[in-house]
Amino acid sequence: MSAQILDGLALSKETRARLKERVDALVARGVTPRLDVLVAAQDPASVKYVQMKRKWCAQVGIVGESYEITETTSQADLIGKIRELNADPHVHGILLQHPLPGHLDENMALMELGAEKDVDGITPQSLGRLVADLPGFRCATPLGIIRLLEHYGIETVGKRAVVIGRSIILGKPAALMLLQKNATVTIAHSRTQNLADICREADIVVAAVGRPEMVAGDWIKPGAVVVDAGYNRVEGRKGDVGDVAFESASQVAGWITPVPGGVGPMTVASLLSNCVEAAEATITNR
Amino acid sequence: MSAQILDGLALSKETRARLKERVDALVARGVTPRLDVLVAAQDPASVKYVQMKRKWCAQVGIVGESYEITETTSQADLIGKIRELNADPHVHGILLQHPLPGHLDENMALMELGAEKDVDGITPQSLGRLVADLPGFRCATPLGIIRLLEHYGIETVGKRAVVIGRSIILGKPAALMLLQKNATVTIAHSRTQNLADICREADIVVAAVGRPEMVAGDWIKPGAVVVDAGYNRVEGRKGDVGDVAFESASQVAGWITPVPGGVGPMTVASLLSNCVEAAEATITNR
Repeated sequence: MSAQILDGLALSKETRARLKERVDALVARGVTPRLDVLVAAQDPASVKYVQMKRKWCAQVGIVGESYEITETTSQADLIGKIRELNADPHVHGILLQHPLPGHLDENMALMELGAEKDVDGITPQSLGRLVADLPGFRCATPLGIIRLLEHYGIETVGKRAVVIGRSIILGKPAALMLLQKNATVTIAHSRTQNLADICREADIVVAAVGRPEMVAGDWIKPGAVVVDAGYNRVEGRKGDVGDVAFESASQVAGWITPVPGGVGPMTVASLLSNCVEAAEATITNR
Repeated sequence: MSAQILDGLALSKETRARLKERVDALVARGVTPRLDVLVAAQDPASVKYVQMKRKWCAQVGIVGESYEITETTSQADLIGKIRELNADPHVHGILLQHPLPGHLDENMALMELGAEKDVDGITPQSLGRLVADLPGFRCATPLGIIRLLEHYGIETVGKRAVVIGRSIILGKPAALMLLQKNATVTIAHSRTQNLADICREADIVVAAVGRPEMVAGDWIKPGAVVVDAGYNRVEGRKGDVGDVAFESASQVAGWITPVPGGVGPMTVASLLSNCVEAAEATITNR
């Protein structure tokens, strides 16, 4: 192993410690940051994920309510709840935990969610502000990736970045954020031909495909920065498996994120940081 | 010259003829498509550009008012006007002609403009819908480019596309639209290193930099599709000059857009087509 580790867990801890201080300062001024969550009660993964977010929120002092979305929740109920939370001055962030039950129109719901409370950065309004380089909340995972790169002083200007994957919450916003940091960005995906060759051109690789260990060591240019945003379940293996074959890639790369302990903790830290910013903005805008 | 011409003028004429029929059908049902324009009265280029758009609108039967924005227009006036037009059921499209006088906040104004009337596709809401693959109006110029490629049956799936330029109205949305059409997309820009080499990798090149004839013939892979979205003024030369060196590039390319007669007319056709769609939607949604 020659690569240096981009330690997301360590940076996340640092970030959360600083956030705790900012929350304390807010509380002293009478504002307790609050993140409310709408979550499909029947989806065990969602419920578990929300519990985990709650735990991290509690650690830095962010409070919040959860609202269960069930098979009997109507679209009007959902929209009504979002409007109520949009209007509630005590609520700073609103999280619509994906996926919702199939009878609900998630996109319509996201279009209702106010940009100033979209701490997950996934509404069309927030994504559009990202395209237009306007202030707004950025998606938690790509924001976490960018902060990790910045923390370790990774140069992006004029570098070739290849983002593998084009999801709305990861690949596309990651590409746009790397572009904003003056990288030359290529977005590759399931229809890309000669993916290994394209990957080998990259000074920075962001893998966000959801296929365990798809990115092999011989896809990596020596010295490249490898960011693994994958967390896959593989039968017979414990814990999450990334999109990158860590063993072989870490022999070649200059920098690499581990799974776990890389992008995952930075995602949560960025969500919390967006929440604290949203709460701080209510004071600034008073 | 070996390249075949992507004839934007011819396709634009065809498109406008079909739009005329759709407008006639709308008028028969009591709806006259209307595009209202807010334009900086002191900017001669803007005024000329708006006059040109008006002329094309009139040809297909789209009516509209123009409102002059001057040094004495306040931000509140501007926002008030946009809200008034948002609420007016007779207005189907609203165009905020860039640039506005410097004392006005154009971004704030764009955030007010309703997505269902943003026929130019440049508000954060519209750009975000593009990122999220949601229905909405797409930016006129990149939309015109995509329609031109579609018309000539240019394959995009799995092809390497290089977009040179990252503006909000051209480079970034063009990249997102090519991505949606399953190309592997690279976005290059002023900070890109080895631009010529990157360009040579491309099956499809979209030049949107605003530098006359920057893209040389030897930057083009033999047989590639070259789309020139540049229109530059060059002293001593008549008319607009593109971003691509047409003479040399057309020796190598498989397909190429001329300047003028390529992307320009398709931009206007797409704007008109968005206007007609906006008017049609008011009937569908009745």
